[in-house]
Amino acid sequence: MPNPVEALISEHRPTLERALEAIRSREYFSQFPESIKAQPEGAMDAGQQAFESYLGKPFPLEQPGADGTVSTEKSPYGLDLDISYPHVSVDALLPAAAAGIPAWRDAGPDARAAVCVEILTRLHARSVEIAYACMHTSGQAFGMAFQAGGAHAQDRGLEAVAYAYAEQSRHAATARWEKPMGKRGPLVMEKKFTAVPRGIALVIGCNTFPTWNSYPGLFASLATGNAVVVKPHPRAVLPLAITVAVAREVLSEAGFDPNLVTLVAEDPDEKVAAVLAQRPEVKIIDFTGSTAFGDWLETIACKAPVYTEKAGVNTIVIDSTDDYTGMLNNVAFSLSLYTGQMCTAPQNLLIPRDGITADGEHTSFDQVTADLAGAVDALLGEEKRAVEILGAVVNDDVLGRIDGATGTGKVVLASRAVDHPAFPGATIRTPTIVAVDSANEQVYGAECFGPISFAVATDSTDASIALFRKVVAEKGALTASVYSTDESVLSSMEEAAQDVGVALSCNLTGGVYVNQSAAFSDFHGTGANAAANAALTDGAYVAGRFRIVQSRRHA
Amino acid sequence: MPNPVEALISEHRPTLERALEAIRSREYFSQFPESIKAQPEGAMDAGQQAFESYLGKPFPLEQPGADGTVSTEKSPYGLDLDISYPHVSVDALLPAAAAGIPAWRDAGPDARAAVCVEILTRLHARSVEIAYACMHTSGQAFGMAFQAGGAHAQDRGLEAVAYAYAEQSRHAATARWEKPMGKRGPLVMEKKFTAVPRGIALVIGCNTFPTWNSYPGLFASLATGNAVVVKPHPRAVLPLAITVAVAREVLSEAGFDPNLVTLVAEDPDEKVAAVLAQRPEVKIIDFTGSTAFGDWLETIACKAPVYTEKAGVNTIVIDSTDDYTGMLNNVAFSLSLYTGQMCTAPQNLLIPRDGITADGEHTSFDQVTADLAGAVDALLGEEKRAVEILGAVVNDDVLGRIDGATGTGKVVLASRAVDHPAFPGATIRTPTIVAVDSANEQVYGAECFGPISFAVATDSTDASIALFRKVVAEKGALTASVYSTDESVLSSMEEAAQDVGVALSCNLTGGVYVNQSAAFSDFHGTGANAAANAALTDGAYVAGRFRIVQSRRHA
Repeated sequence: MPNPVEALISEHRPTLERALEAIRSREYFSQFPESIKAQPEGAMDAGQQAFESYLGKPFPLEQPGADGTVSTEKSPYGLDLDISYPHVSVDALLPAAAAGIPAWRDAGPDARAAVCVEILTRLHARSVEIAYACMHTSGQAFGMAFQAGGAHAQDRGLEAVAYAYAEQSRHAATARWEKPMGKRGPLVMEKKFTAVPRGIALVIGCNTFPTWNSYPGLFASLATGNAVVVKPHPRAVLPLAITVAVAREVLSEAGFDPNLVTLVAEDPDEKVAAVLAQRPEVKIIDFTGSTAFGDWLETIACKAPVYTEKAGVNTIVIDSTDDYTGMLNNVAFSLSLYTGQMCTAPQNLLIPRDGITADGEHTSFDQVTADLAGAVDALLGEEKRAVEILGAVVNDDVLGRIDGATGTGKVVLASRAVDHPAFPGATIRTPTIVAVDSANEQVYGAECFGPISFAVATDSTDASIALFRKVVAEKGALTASVYSTDESVLSSMEEAAQDVGVALSCNLTGGVYVNQSAAFSDFHGTGANAAANAALTDGAYVAGRFRIVQSRRHA
Repeated sequence: MPNPVEALISEHRPTLERALEAIRSREYFSQFPESIKAQPEGAMDAGQQAFESYLGKPFPLEQPGADGTVSTEKSPYGLDLDISYPHVSVDALLPAAAAGIPAWRDAGPDARAAVCVEILTRLHARSVEIAYACMHTSGQAFGMAFQAGGAHAQDRGLEAVAYAYAEQSRHAATARWEKPMGKRGPLVMEKKFTAVPRGIALVIGCNTFPTWNSYPGLFASLATGNAVVVKPHPRAVLPLAITVAVAREVLSEAGFDPNLVTLVAEDPDEKVAAVLAQRPEVKIIDFTGSTAFGDWLETIACKAPVYTEKAGVNTIVIDSTDDYTGMLNNVAFSLSLYTGQMCTAPQNLLIPRDGITADGEHTSFDQVTADLAGAVDALLGEEKRAVEILGAVVNDDVLGRIDGATGTGKVVLASRAVDHPAFPGATIRTPTIVAVDSANEQVYGAECFGPISFAVATDSTDASIALFRKVVAEKGALTASVYSTDESVLSSMEEAAQDVGVALSCNLTGGVYVNQSAAFSDFHGTGANAAANAALTDGAYVAGRFRIVQSRRHA
C-alpha cells in the first residue's frame, strides 16, 4: 500500500471511530462544524473568490473521453454563471472509470475509508466556495447553502463511510476454522474474506440539494470499492464538479486512479442518466428526483441495487397543543424554509373542522389557519430576514404551482413576491396556505412541490390519522408530524407511522423542525413507503454495494 | 409480552450470543449436532414411525382458506408416499397471513429471535423424521438427508436469525440526542427507532434441498417481523409441511398468530409461485431453482427484495498437486455426492492438454482423467457404500442429461446404474466424465445439472484461468476450486475469483469438499455472479427485510 494511504489511515482513524460509535448510539455527533464562525480567518473571502474564479470559464477538470463542453446552469439569483463543463463520451468514460477498481478493491476497507474521510475533510475546507455554488444553483440562501450544502452534506457523507466500513468489517477478514472430528482429529481450514465491489456506481444528483442528496450514495459506493460516475442535475453542476475535482485530487495523491470518480455533465436533452442506468457496467444507482424517473429506474434496473428518493405527501396532524405559539412558529418556519422546496417540507396540515384545543382553549379551524398565516407573515415580515429563510425559487414550475393552488380552496395565506436587497434578479416568493375540505382529496392527495400547503378540514383527529394513513400508504412521505397533548393520540400516530413506514416528529415547538434530519441520528426516509426505497443511512443502504468473496484452503 | 416469550428469550439467549459471535469470527460453530449418534435413544425408531405415520393420509395442517387437497410427491426410492396437503385460496390466505404482523412487529427483535430459535430447536428434535421426509422427496441418501436436511439446515436457519437480530439491533432502540447550541443551551430530543417488517415474505422451495435452501430465507424474514408464506416444490412438500407445522405450533404457544407461517401446496399446473410473487401484499421473495424462473422473479419483482439462487457452471482448475491421490479422491467424492445433484457440485475440470505435474511427475491429460475415473470407480465400487454416497436420481431430466452427455466428447467414465439393496424401485446412477476440447464451449459452457462433468483440455493453466473467468462471468458459479503447488497460480485464481465473484477452494485433498459450505463460516454463493443474487448469509441478505421507523420528540 502506498505510504500516503497509511498516513491517512492513522490520521482519520479517530474520526472514523467516533462516526462508528455515533451510527450505533444515534446520539448527537458532527464531524464538520455547521457554523461559519468555525471557518478559519479569511475563509469567507477566499471562498467567494474561488467561486467567482469559475464564472464565465471552462471548469478545470481533465477526464478521459472529453468530446466538447456543456453549459447549462442559471442562478436563481440572476447572477450570470456561464460556466462550461467537459462533456464526455460514455463509451470512452466507462472503461476508464472501471480501470482503477482492482487496485481500489485490493487496498481494503481501511484505506478506502481513510481516503473518503480525506476527501470530505478537504471538501469541508472549501465549504464557503461550495456554499456559493449551492446557493447559485439551488436557490438556497447563503446561510442554508453553507450548512446544508457544506457541513451537513459532509456529515451525511461521513455517515455513509462509517456504515460502509462497518458493513465491510462486520466479518473477520480471515478465520481459522477448526471442526472437531473426534478421533480422526479436527478439519482445519484457513479462510480469507474479501469485500468485492459491484463495479461502476452511478449517482444522479438533484437541483435542490446537489451535495446533501448525492454524498451518501457517492461515499457509500466509493468506500465499498466501486468507481463512481456522478451525473449532476443540469441546473446544479458546479457543487458536484467541485466535489469530483476534490475527490480526484485526493485519489491521485493517495496513489489511486483519479478516474474512480468522474463527472458526466450533459445537455438536458441527452437524458444521459437513462443511458448510463441501462449500461451493463453500471451496477449501482443512486437517484434523487421525480417519482416518474425514480420508478422507471427501479423497474429497468432491477438487476442492480437502486436507491431512490422521490416525492411524497408530508403531513402534519394537528390535534391539540399546550404551546400554541411554539407550534405556530415551528410550523411557519417549516413551511417557509427554502420556499418549501425541501423534500421534507410539510404539505398537508390535517386539522379537525371543529377546531382544536390550544393552550387549554377551544380554537376553531379558521382561527388556527389564520394564526398560522399570521405566524408566517411575522416570520417573513422583514425583507432582509425573509430572503435568508426563503432563498430563491428554484425553477418556474414552482411558480406555476403557486398560481395553480389559488383556485383549489380558500386561500388563507397568499404568496407574495419579495425583493432581494442584493440580487434584484432573484425570484423570491412566500408560502401560500389553502384551506380545503378533506373530501377534496384530488387537491391535496399528491405532492405539490413548492411553498404550497393545504389546511385540510377533517371530521376529527381520528379521521385525520385515518387520512394520514391512506394518503401516505398511497403516495408515500418523507416526514410526518403530530401535535397533541393526548398521549393516546401520539401513540395512535406512532402506530400509524409504523404501519405506513414514515418517520414521525411529535410536538416540535423549539429549534428542531420536521424538515430537518440530523446525520448520525435521524434516518432520512425509511424505504418503507413510496417516497423513497431507501433510508439515509442504514445497513440496507450499504450492504448491497459490495459482495464478500472467500478463499479457503487447508491449514 | 406474554410470559412464555420471556422464558424463551432467557432460554435461547446463550445460543443467540454464540451464533452472533460466530457470524463475526467466521470460526467453527454448530448449534445442532450433525451426528445421528447425538440423537437421544429411540430417536431413530420414533422418527421413522413419525415419518411413516404421514404416508397415505392427509397431512395434519389447519390453515385459513383451505379449499381442497393436493398430492404431488413421488419418492425417488419408489416408496409409495400418497400424502395429501391442504390446498388454500391465496385470496383467503394472504389477509390471514398479514393479520398477525403488528403484534409480531411490536414484540421486538429479542422475542422474534427467541421464537425462531425455539422453532429450530424443535425441528432439530425431529431431525430423523425430517431426514426421511428429505430422503423420500429429494432422493438424498438417509445419512446426507439427516445432515443436510436436518442439522446443517437448522444451523443455516440459526445463522439467518443471528444476522437478522444483529441487523435490527445494530442501532440503539432509543437515543437522547443533545446538540450543543452555545449560550442558548442544548437542543434535546428523545428518539425511538423501531424495526418495521416489509409485510408478507414468500419462500419458494426447491426439490433437491427443501429445508437447507429454504430455512435461511424463512428465518431471516420471520425474525425481522414478516409473515412467511412457504411454497414448496410440488415434489418436496413434506419436509416443509413439517417445518411449517412446527413453526405454527411454537408461534401459537408463544401467544402469536400461527398464520405468520403458512404452507401453500399446489398442483404443478397452478404456477402459484408466480401468482404469489405478483401479489402486492408479497414484499420479499426467496427462491431457489431454475435460472429462467429466478431471472423472471428478479425482473417482475423489482419493487420487492428478491433473493435468488439459480444455476451456474462450477469449475475446477487443475494445474499441479503434491497430493495426487488426495486430489483425485476429493474430486471423485465431489462428483459423486448426491449424484452431482448439488448446486455446488463441480462440472468443468479445466486441465492443460499437455498435462500437469502430480507428485513431482509429469502426468498427461489422459492419465489425469483416467485416474479420476478410477478414483470414482473405487469410491463407488461397493454397492452398499455407493448408494449411501449417491442417493437416488431426483427426476427423469437428470437421466436425460446423462444420456445426452455421451455424444458430446470422449467418454472417460460412463455412468452406470446401481441397485439399491433396500429400495429396488430406486433409480441410482454413477457419474459420467466426458473429455472435451476447450474449443467446444457449446458443450461445457452452460450448466448440465446432474452427475455429468467435463474434463476440458486447455492450452495451459493460464488459458484455464482465462476460460474460468469467461464462463463464470457469463453463466455464474456457486463454487470454484483450484489445484496448484504454485503460489502464483493460486494467487491468479484468487484474483480471478474476486473479479468474477465466486468463492474459491484451494487444494482440497482432505475431508472438506468444494460442494460443502459450513454455516457461520462459509458464505454460500456471493450474489456477485449470475448463479445467485444473494449470499447465505450476510448483511445484504437480511438488511432489506425490514425498515427502521423513528419517532422523536423534545425531551
